[in-house]
Amino acid sequence: MSNHLDRIVIVLNRPIHPGNVGSVARAMKNMGLRYLRIVEGCDLTDERARWMAVTAGEILDRAVAFQDLKKGVADCSLVIGTVPPDRPRFQQETYAAREMARRIRFRHPDDRVAIIFGPEDHGLANRELDLCHEFVSIPSHPAYPSLNISHAVMVIAYEISLSAQQESPDPERPAASAEQVEQMYQHLEQTLVEIGFLDPGNPLHIMRDLRRIFSRARLDEREVKIVRGMCRQIDWAAGQRGR
Amino acid sequence: MSNHLDRIVIVLNRPIHPGNVGSVARAMKNMGLRYLRIVEGCDLTDERARWMAVTAGEILDRAVAFQDLKKGVADCSLVIGTVPPDRPRFQQETYAAREMARRIRFRHPDDRVAIIFGPEDHGLANRELDLCHEFVSIPSHPAYPSLNISHAVMVIAYEISLSAQQESPDPERPAASAEQVEQMYQHLEQTLVEIGFLDPGNPLHIMRDLRRIFSRARLDEREVKIVRGMCRQIDWAAGQRGR
Repeated sequence: MSNHLDRIVIVLNRPIHPGNVGSVARAMKNMGLRYLRIVEGCDLTDERARWMAVTAGEILDRAVAFQDLKKGVADCSLVIGTVPPDRPRFQQETYAAREMARRIRFRHPDDRVAIIFGPEDHGLANRELDLCHEFVSIPSHPAYPSLNISHAVMVIAYEISLSAQQESPDPERPAASAEQVEQMYQHLEQTLVEIGFLDPGNPLHIMRDLRRIFSRARLDEREVKIVRGMCRQIDWAAGQRGR
Repeated sequence: MSNHLDRIVIVLNRPIHPGNVGSVARAMKNMGLRYLRIVEGCDLTDERARWMAVTAGEILDRAVAFQDLKKGVADCSLVIGTVPPDRPRFQQETYAAREMARRIRFRHPDDRVAIIFGPEDHGLANRELDLCHEFVSIPSHPAYPSLNISHAVMVIAYEISLSAQQESPDPERPAASAEQVEQMYQHLEQTLVEIGFLDPGNPLHIMRDLRRIFSRARLDEREVKIVRGMCRQIDWAAGQRGR
């Protein structure tokens, strides 16, 4: 988990208010993120930055300053730009915060990831967005989508931190095909009728519940094989009876 | 959706810094929440409150002041206290932010809900927590779990806002208790060892896969009973063999 969080770099591009940067550092520390970079930034020794950081001063101390965004993300293999939800950069490559956190965790498990936040007053410029591979936005109310920069960092850091604890690699596991799953249901139904668990005249009632359980679990191929192996073994165990 | 958000009241109990209150108002507006109450609070006309609220001044204007927390939540039928993740109030009634948002949405769809945040320096006192029916905590890094109050409001408002858009009634199904699920696993394991599907010397390998499937499916009580009924029937069918 700490490995996962340690490959995340928060990049503040041209932040204006030292208090906000301090607040960002605190949010990062709350969520277990450690690496902060500042491009063309304000003064981090400003007392407002220190005051808002509370005990996260170490993140400010360790923050690296760059004069150029390109250089600031040069060592990162996945560069993500934050965009407002009402202005996705490219629809295809813009993900909501939760989905992006999952992608970072499961689709890009080995990348060093930069997440860039623009200045407080008007976000990232087009030439800055051009440096990004993907885009993230925070779902917010259409009437007022503009978050304080430290709030934006908090939501994204929170999602990344939660995704670090997710054990199920759900989105990544390729699901079994509908046909494989359907054959599994047929087999399960036969087996359960055979042992008398399902009423042969009306097997659907309980089968519907079992289908719902497995459909929520979204089985992969290996898991379908496990369930079918289990059915075969039940068939065998029950079949002994008659012999 | 707006109905759902409009029954949520954010209550700041003895907030100290006007800037934080302004920042809370902004976070609320970003996430579509409108109702703010302040108990024994600081001056909301303070310019720092206005400055941090940016365009959410209307929420400060509409905020209602109380001198007493009990009165401040008197008209709410679900009162939720925020607690640090490392100090859950009562384990049973403390939920992580995401789960709490689901509960508000699906388990308490008609309640007026107060969510109380304590003062910046040391959270809610015991006598204040005594007024609460349930508790919410924000998962954070054990080394530094103490969030800025506006960050805490942002995370909870964000979860509530996302849950308002959830269409899947899944979270509404009350999940079976951990104990019920664990007993089901025990039964399943015995049954599958008995019919020779699991190696009695090393049942864990395949059981781990089965646990993962069922844990993703998040069974409710009725489904646990179905799985156990299936196990009993397998036990019976296999048991016939030896007789």
